[in-house]
Amino acid sequence: MRNVKLLVEYDGTEFVGWQVQPNGRSVQGVLEETLRQILGETVHVIGAGRTDSGVHARGQVANFHTESSLDLSSLHAALNSLLPEDVVVLAAEVVDPSFHARYDARERVYRYYISRTQTALARQFTWFVKYELDVGAMNEAARRIVGEQEFTTFCKADPERDNARVNVMFAHWHVSGTQLTFEIRANRFLRGMVRSLVGSMVDVGRGYITVNEFIESFEKEERSGAGMSAPAKGLFLEGVKY
Amino acid sequence: MRNVKLLVEYDGTEFVGWQVQPNGRSVQGVLEETLRQILGETVHVIGAGRTDSGVHARGQVANFHTESSLDLSSLHAALNSLLPEDVVVLAAEVVDPSFHARYDARERVYRYYISRTQTALARQFTWFVKYELDVGAMNEAARRIVGEQEFTTFCKADPERDNARVNVMFAHWHVSGTQLTFEIRANRFLRGMVRSLVGSMVDVGRGYITVNEFIESFEKEERSGAGMSAPAKGLFLEGVKY
Repeated sequence: MRNVKLLVEYDGTEFVGWQVQPNGRSVQGVLEETLRQILGETVHVIGAGRTDSGVHARGQVANFHTESSLDLSSLHAALNSLLPEDVVVLAAEVVDPSFHARYDARERVYRYYISRTQTALARQFTWFVKYELDVGAMNEAARRIVGEQEFTTFCKADPERDNARVNVMFAHWHVSGTQLTFEIRANRFLRGMVRSLVGSMVDVGRGYITVNEFIESFEKEERSGAGMSAPAKGLFLEGVKY
Repeated sequence: MRNVKLLVEYDGTEFVGWQVQPNGRSVQGVLEETLRQILGETVHVIGAGRTDSGVHARGQVANFHTESSLDLSSLHAALNSLLPEDVVVLAAEVVDPSFHARYDARERVYRYYISRTQTALARQFTWFVKYELDVGAMNEAARRIVGEQEFTTFCKADPERDNARVNVMFAHWHVSGTQLTFEIRANRFLRGMVRSLVGSMVDVGRGYITVNEFIESFEKEERSGAGMSAPAKGLFLEGVKY
């Protein structure tokens, strides 16, 4: 029984998200179906981050166990030739049988892209925000979320979750020309967390709420305190560290 | 009668090309229809470059004459709110009545993007080439096409064209990580010219033909001498100089 680790890139536009769901096309489902075709056996693919509908990945990490003895480069080539064109396996390697893509991950890196100008070419990969944004104020808010804290304010309800404690190692807005990029690194991410944070930080940037109001709602730990969530299309799972 | 100049970005994936055609969705057609809705009159939109089906633009230039007195910023905003999301007007300005986007253009800049790795996210904007490529040899071929010469070998038949003389000011392959970008600047471009050149230069890069064979077929001035054309999706009209 080999344990195979995959590095996966996908365009989330046409997916209901990473995780298999009763109705709809999921990245996990597409990978499991393609692996079944190649290996002739049913495999269970574990992903490091359960990205939501419409969220993209440049560096999702997944693993699965297989009885097959097919060599790794043939498996990798077969995957990329049979997968739909919105999913690509960037790398494949055999790892220790105990490796678990989700439980062993120490840090996930997400980026959120905002465009200050309307764009046709990047419209599926960026959020167009027409307001003037005070990036200094947004970075004040970003600094405040670093550390180990409860993120109840900035997430969706999730019956499977026992607590909302997250250790954020890094959170920063970077400006490059007409593009703003928010990078956040944490040990874990709650459902809808990055999009909720980005939505509220944009509210800070456009002066709709103050940094203090952002901090107060964060400290209240009530989901009703957050603003609108930013659209999924601007969000990318960039990588996972083990 | 005002003459309005537009700077236009579009994702060519879902278009039959710039030019209005009997069947199919064209960028020119979409612009003319949207302007008719806004201005209440039929306008004729002239584009600097008649990009083919599937070719993108970051800097297409167009112009049209209108009787309307609608102010320019309202027109610009109305265009971007009514145009389909794969076309964006980046800038609009009133210009001299004699300005003609096509005839007055002195130089057009095109870029062609090749990815050395398979990609899900950029799959509609880049050509994935799996072969090892000798970029030095490709740049030898590129140097040979600079200057004013007949490009009969590297174009499609076009009954409207009286000659195939083109003055290429710049042609160069640039490597950045796993991406190759070919930039070419010329006074005019023939139908299918960049895609034909790129296809044959990739044949040089992978060693399928030699630089000398490329030059011989160029000098023969016979269309049958070119290799396969590169796919449209990697090609961008980057800008137009007046």
